[in-house]
Parts: sequence; C-alpha cells; structure tokens
Amino acid sequence: MTRRRITGFSNPSVKAIRALREKKHRRREGRFLAEGLRLLTDARENGRLPETLVLSDARDPHPLLAALEAAVTEAGGEVLETTPDILSKITGKANPQAVAGVFTEFDTSLERVDRSRAPIWLVAQALRDPGNLGTMLRTGDAVGAGGLILIDDCADPFGVETVRASMGAIFTQQLAQASWPEFLEWLRAGAGEQGGQLVAASLRDARPYRGAPYAAPCFVMVGNESQGLPDAYEAACDLRVTMPMKGRADSLNAAVAAAVLAYEVLATLDA
Amino acid sequence: MTRRRITGFSNPSVKAIRALREKKHRRREGRFLAEGLRLLTDARENGRLPETLVLSDARDPHPLLAALEAAVTEAGGEVLETTPDILSKITGKANPQAVAGVFTEFDTSLERVDRSRAPIWLVAQALRDPGNLGTMLRTGDAVGAGGLILIDDCADPFGVETVRASMGAIFTQQLAQASWPEFLEWLRAGAGEQGGQLVAASLRDARPYRGAPYAAPCFVMVGNESQGLPDAYEAACDLRVTMPMKGRADSLNAAVAAAVLAYEVLATLDA
Repeated sequence: MTRRRITGFSNPSVKAIRALREKKHRRREGRFLAEGLRLLTDARENGRLPETLVLSDARDPHPLLAALEAAVTEAGGEVLETTPDILSKITGKANPQAVAGVFTEFDTSLERVDRSRAPIWLVAQALRDPGNLGTMLRTGDAVGAGGLILIDDCADPFGVETVRASMGAIFTQQLAQASWPEFLEWLRAGAGEQGGQLVAASLRDARPYRGAPYAAPCFVMVGNESQGLPDAYEAACDLRVTMPMKGRADSLNAAVAAAVLAYEVLATLDA
Repeated sequence: MTRRRITGFSNPSVKAIRALREKKHRRREGRFLAEGLRLLTDARENGRLPETLVLSDARDPHPLLAALEAAVTEAGGEVLETTPDILSKITGKANPQAVAGVFTEFDTSLERVDRSRAPIWLVAQALRDPGNLGTMLRTGDAVGAGGLILIDDCADPFGVETVRASMGAIFTQQLAQASWPEFLEWLRAGAGEQGGQLVAASLRDARPYRGAPYAAPCFVMVGNESQGLPDAYEAACDLRVTMPMKGRADSLNAAVAAAVLAYEVLATLDA
C-alpha cells in the first residue's frame, strides 16, 4: 500500500482538510470530516469509505485500521500519513484520534427516505446546537429509527461536532433536509397504508406521553432549543404529547425530550 | 439605587469576573458566573442572590430585572453597568445576555443532602462533559429529583457551560461532590427506612429498564462518557437496568441515558 507522507502544516492537503471544519468550505467541497477508528469502521461497515484517510504516525497497529486502509486503497482512495501535531490541527482536538477521514456528503433529499423501512423517524425543527443533532442521531440508532429529518434552519449535520456527538450514527441513520411545507407535503402524500404519524413533544393541548396511541411509522418531532415548535407546526401534528415537569423548568433539553419520547414510542410499538 | 459604571476592558472588576470562566480562578475565589435574566430570576426565587450584578447598558427595561437589581442592592451587593462588548468579553458569548451575576459557590458536601426530601436523585460518575452535567441538572429539575451527586472526577459543575446548560437548575437542584467510597458509605449508612436504592444504567447482567422494581429514594447513576461505570461500581448497585439498543451503538449519550431512566423511575414511583 502506498501512503503519502505529510509533515508540513502548510501542506495544501492539510489546509484543504482542515478547512472542512468550516461550513462554507464543506458546502463548497461537498465533503466532511470524521475522526476515530470506531467511527470510520462504522462507516466502512455501512458501505461508506473516505476518499482520503489520514493516519497518525504515532498510531498503534490495529486489525481494523489495517482493514480500513486496505479498503480505502482498493477503492482508489488516498492514504496520508502525518504527525499527531498536524492531525491535531486538522481536527481541532488537543488529543487527536489516530485516524481521520474525508467523506463525500450524503444526498439528503427527502425523496430518498423510504418511511416503511423503520417504525420510528426523528424530526428536528430549527435545532441550532450541533451536539443536540449528533445526540439525536445516536439516539435514533439506539431506538431503531430510520433516520433524522431536519426541518428549516438546523445546524449543519456534517459539522465536526455533530459527527463526533453522533458516535458513528451519522453513517447508520439516514439524513434528510427539508423545509416545513416540503416535509408536510411529503408526509401527507404518503397517506393511506404508508402514512405516517407526526408526534410533537409539546406543552400545549397535549396528552401525557405515556400511554398515547403511537403508530408506525411514527415521526417524533422536537423544536428549536429556545423557541420550541411554532404553533402552526404543532397544530399540524397528529398527536401532541407532554412529559411531566415537576420542577421550575418548563422544558427539557431538545435531544433529551426526543430520547424520552422515542423510547416511549419504541416500548409502545414493541408491546 | 447606585450603579457603578465600567467602560474599560482592562478594568480590574471586568478582569476578575472574566477570570471566573476558568476553573482555577473559580476554585481560588469560590465564585462562579451565571448569565441571563431567567437564570438570575430562578436564582433569586430560590434565595440565591449574586454578590455582583452586571447589567448591559443596552438592556431593555423589565420588571424582573428591576426586582433583581433591587434585591441585590438591598442585600448589600454590587451593581455594575457596562457595555454589551464588555459583557460579551466577560461571558465569552458573541451575543451576551443583558445581565450576568457573580455567585458564591454552594457547599457541595454530601452530608448536607437529605435524601428523604425527594424520591429521585441523579448520580454522575466521572462525567467529563460540562454540557452533560448541565443537562442532567435540567432533567433532574424536570423529574422532581432532589439534586445531582458527582462521584469521582467530574467536570466542574460551576463552569459557565454547565450553568448555561442547566437552564437555571443549578439553583434549584442540590449539588454534592464525593469520592465513590464516601458516597457508598453515606448511602449505606442511611439504610433502613431512609435507605436508598442505587440503580445503574448498565449493559452487563442487567434487566430491562421498563418494569424494574424502582423504589424511593432512587439514586440513578450513569458513568463516564467513554468508559461507562467501573465494574466494581456496577456490582455495588442494587439494580442494574438496560435500555434497548436496536442499532449498532452499544450506548446512549450519558445525559440521555440518565433522562430516559429517570423518567421511567418517575413513572414507576408515581404509579
């Protein structure tokens, strides 16, 4: 296997990869960055290989790392080897993982979503926190969701923080992006047997989340961190449910609300 | 009311408050920083007033802000007025809130915890992410927990990110810090009627989290983000429960696991 060795911070490849930490460069290049052997192995096992694999020369040998490198090479990808310092600069982490990869962004058009493929889908409306998005992807994987649908102006799902917080679920969960009218039209156009039940975690006109009549495919939607869901969006839902709030706060963290609700849906559908 | 006006970035008060963003300064001063009218109002209504209140001169008038300023002044605290730029520098946020306060850190000794005061307590072991700690505080408030007990080397609960993510719950949830042996001794010393059931979110030798025999006071424990709980800690628990993992991942985000479990405990105890 041939590896290209890079030792200079000002190397054009280093600069180009590092630039993927910024959204405008990701948009322009259609590429994103993921780090860590575990994430990259999840990617490989889901049929996603990086175009460029970057290895630290301080790495320990590992059979999964060898398998990854072989797969990337066989697919015609590029393998770079560099110092921990440069990897640290690329990923923005003081203690970088031993490996990182540059991936082509996925097609996130809603039309590619086959709702019958899974009983649960998560929906995030105008979620601004990349960590919340990544956590929702991770939760989606855990509850057997098909994927995450991003409505309106959400954080970039291909950002480094989102990918990191997803713990690999960025490669196992399907991602779609749509405006609210697009999503609603798509959801209702699939009516009948396909259908789809839209459920909002809500505070208004809502029934208790436990024992609610969830039905597959169930779309579990949470709204923006500070504003919640717009009234009109809640009104369009098939079901509005609420979690107990015993204290002073009137809401949960968005990713937490999605998880508590999704696990309840899972228990209902599995029962 | 007298306000002291500050316009220079190099003003000693500005420097001293800004330094509270760093843990070593918080430790030395025994003080921490909280921002936002809502958080500070939560604090006031829970009997916590800042020693120093910092107001932006670009603030809009608000009755809660007036009430806050009056309370601080009456309690002998200091009120500073400054520019949005300087507030931004103090809090490290590009768009700072109109108000921030400097608080004395709370006594976090375990002996102050009265376990009979609440049916649920959250326990975090070696949690390193300040956002996770803050989210656990917020969840604790929502489920009616008494507080959050930090075991071993956790992130600083008085850090800006934790306080922010807690959404005010830093002032409503009791905080305690202890080593594992200290905690276990305290927990078991209260045996008998007081007692306490220690429940771990676990993957090993665990029963399904739904329908498990939770009992108050129930201590819901989650472990470090990457290591989970040490085996010996799990072994010492009264109950080990596990959530379904339908996908490739074998764990949830720590704050999510705590929330899903805590809501299940709440539903069981309330039933």
